[in-house]
Amino acid sequence: MEITQIEGGVTTPKGFSASGIHCGLRKNKTKYDLACIYADHRCASAAVYTTNKVFASPIAVTREHLKDGYAQAVICNSGNANTCTADGYEKTKMMCGALAKELKIDGNDVIVASTGVIGVPLPIEPIVKGIPALVSSLGKSEDHGTDAATAILTTDIKLKKFAYTFKLGNKKVTLGGICKGSGMIHPNMATMLGFITTDAAIAPQMLDKALRRAVDNSFNMISVDGDTSTNDMVCVLASAEAGNEEISSENGDYDIFEKALNMLCTQLAVAIAADGEGATKLLQCDVVNFNDEDGAKKLAKSVICSSLVKAAMYGADANWGRVLCALGYSGVDFDPNKTDLSFKSKEGAVAVCVDGKGVEFDEDEAKRILLSTHVFIECDMKCGGKGATAYGCDLSYEYVRINGDYRS
Amino acid sequence: MEITQIEGGVTTPKGFSASGIHCGLRKNKTKYDLACIYADHRCASAAVYTTNKVFASPIAVTREHLKDGYAQAVICNSGNANTCTADGYEKTKMMCGALAKELKIDGNDVIVASTGVIGVPLPIEPIVKGIPALVSSLGKSEDHGTDAATAILTTDIKLKKFAYTFKLGNKKVTLGGICKGSGMIHPNMATMLGFITTDAAIAPQMLDKALRRAVDNSFNMISVDGDTSTNDMVCVLASAEAGNEEISSENGDYDIFEKALNMLCTQLAVAIAADGEGATKLLQCDVVNFNDEDGAKKLAKSVICSSLVKAAMYGADANWGRVLCALGYSGVDFDPNKTDLSFKSKEGAVAVCVDGKGVEFDEDEAKRILLSTHVFIECDMKCGGKGATAYGCDLSYEYVRINGDYRS
Repeated sequence: MEITQIEGGVTTPKGFSASGIHCGLRKNKTKYDLACIYADHRCASAAVYTTNKVFASPIAVTREHLKDGYAQAVICNSGNANTCTADGYEKTKMMCGALAKELKIDGNDVIVASTGVIGVPLPIEPIVKGIPALVSSLGKSEDHGTDAATAILTTDIKLKKFAYTFKLGNKKVTLGGICKGSGMIHPNMATMLGFITTDAAIAPQMLDKALRRAVDNSFNMISVDGDTSTNDMVCVLASAEAGNEEISSENGDYDIFEKALNMLCTQLAVAIAADGEGATKLLQCDVVNFNDEDGAKKLAKSVICSSLVKAAMYGADANWGRVLCALGYSGVDFDPNKTDLSFKSKEGAVAVCVDGKGVEFDEDEAKRILLSTHVFIECDMKCGGKGATAYGCDLSYEYVRINGDYRS
Repeated sequence: MEITQIEGGVTTPKGFSASGIHCGLRKNKTKYDLACIYADHRCASAAVYTTNKVFASPIAVTREHLKDGYAQAVICNSGNANTCTADGYEKTKMMCGALAKELKIDGNDVIVASTGVIGVPLPIEPIVKGIPALVSSLGKSEDHGTDAATAILTTDIKLKKFAYTFKLGNKKVTLGGICKGSGMIHPNMATMLGFITTDAAIAPQMLDKALRRAVDNSFNMISVDGDTSTNDMVCVLASAEAGNEEISSENGDYDIFEKALNMLCTQLAVAIAADGEGATKLLQCDVVNFNDEDGAKKLAKSVICSSLVKAAMYGADANWGRVLCALGYSGVDFDPNKTDLSFKSKEGAVAVCVDGKGVEFDEDEAKRILLSTHVFIECDMKCGGKGATAYGCDLSYEYVRINGDYRS
């Protein structure tokens, strides 16, 4: 089984077009603010949503539209989250209706997402007026996929698009995805959105299962600041154009597909963590040799979410006490007296704590390791064969500056 | 029932002496680093401890010593947390033994606490050598209490000591307390320590009950950065010298005592929040009119812990969407469409969200309100008569600077 990363995005799998335009939600006319992904025909589709009790209208509408497990188009605007306003639901339905009309598809086959400022009424006119241009701009080239990937960004610094290819039977199958992460010059712009396409033939319920598992191991294992947005969503559309035998049970093909989807989601999620608000480096916490996978996930996330760990990593300070402390308040049962900690990067590795006790280490070497742009915090629990990895970023002045800024 | 705040600290209640000295754990010779509180005779005593799975040796030893519900002295050093080192337990026992010998009391009657750097072996010599001076410095004046309050501080900016007086029957009873909060130039200096004395006569199990309830409503309702230290502890010693009829059940006297203890703990806790690492203002989140007290506590704490809310408050940005978002991911069930939000301070009040939807407000007025040094975030859930208050502080550049600094 070989899964290969290739250049690409949502237009790489067969059967998908995409576009991105500036419709006028953002003042800066060079910034795209409306994206569309369109499939040649209805696709088996699945999505996972924010667990926030306060959720945006697009989340409510997409949930309704995906009840039947099929969709044909995605529309996403940036610049306004369409959340906590009196007319959000109606405007979301209008967005879907206008796109469906232009594409001549059923309004129930539209997945919709928004990201931007909370609590400000969504200007619907620029969207409705922009939809003809959005649809006429649709195309299947890599550039078209890039346009869509650009239009969903808010204050993200980097474009996030990846693709993988693998074989199911003798058929070449492709998975592509784009996402946006957390840049928060505006309030609650931290929305995490991911849009994935594939030409695999797979039944909706199998697609749903694979997506849930992949998201649990990827998007749900990253944290920029511990705040869960009201608009988070990851969705996947499967066009079946690869011509593989449809996956309708957890067979060998399913396993390959799930593994590839895991790889894609992980890469998208890591790209979000690395590009987190004000981040100067990617943090990766690997919890290894634990007796329970869920516990390992909680331990790894507790370390990644600790403000004290994040600030120490910003300062390249080998402050392992904070790591052990964060493991300790994770709520997971473990034996601190068995725990080993080390810091790693491409510059090397340094053991800082053995059996829960500090050991002498070369501070200069530790500093050199922690100055890397990708730092690994390894927690060896020495009590089993399970593990988990969480991703995050450091806490910098820049995070505070951006998030202390006035909404404008 | 009248409970009156008075000037004072741990030496204000009858029967207690205190002292603070520089023994040499800290390089700065003008900074006290060793504190003692001593009771004329054994006292009914109680304590609550960190819930961190990784806890310091002093926590383990104090737990042992308080099993019988009595203690006579407290020793606390700053500068080293005595945590995650191979010989921490032995050194903690040595501290207690040396103090007990000098005071001619039982070693099991010593409460011990440490705060400072994690994972560095505790230099025990300066402590043992300093104990004679610590004991000979003991005294019952207000200044002696201040010395102890000073010696437990790390990078706290403000001294934290308060006292209250009230009557039980016709007897005047006094409660006094000191605490330290979160200043983290060294790693995990965030330890929260509180030492409380009273001359009330109260049975150990009643004292324990009152302390647990008071801590739940005070120290457990503050957050500076969401990181739970390995060394947190709050303890109380009751000398019985007020001469009131001993409280041995939840009678009317108990209720008055518990209320006074609640007031003292709240004042100590608020002082910690206001003096949080890098804080420029105190945040108070009042959740009102909810249907469940525990839920109200979780909601209020979720708001106070949100990095996004904290950063917005630092920037005096009336970014209410982040407040609603934090309520939403608290894990508590509520109806966002019933929630009203407003920001208040001594400068005024401004309603920003009604029934979960944004309302127009004067941005200049909001800015003026949020520039205050004590900002109230009121969340009116409109579904019951229960409420809770949580305290925190804003997230500033200074927090990042201090916590990104190298351990030294």
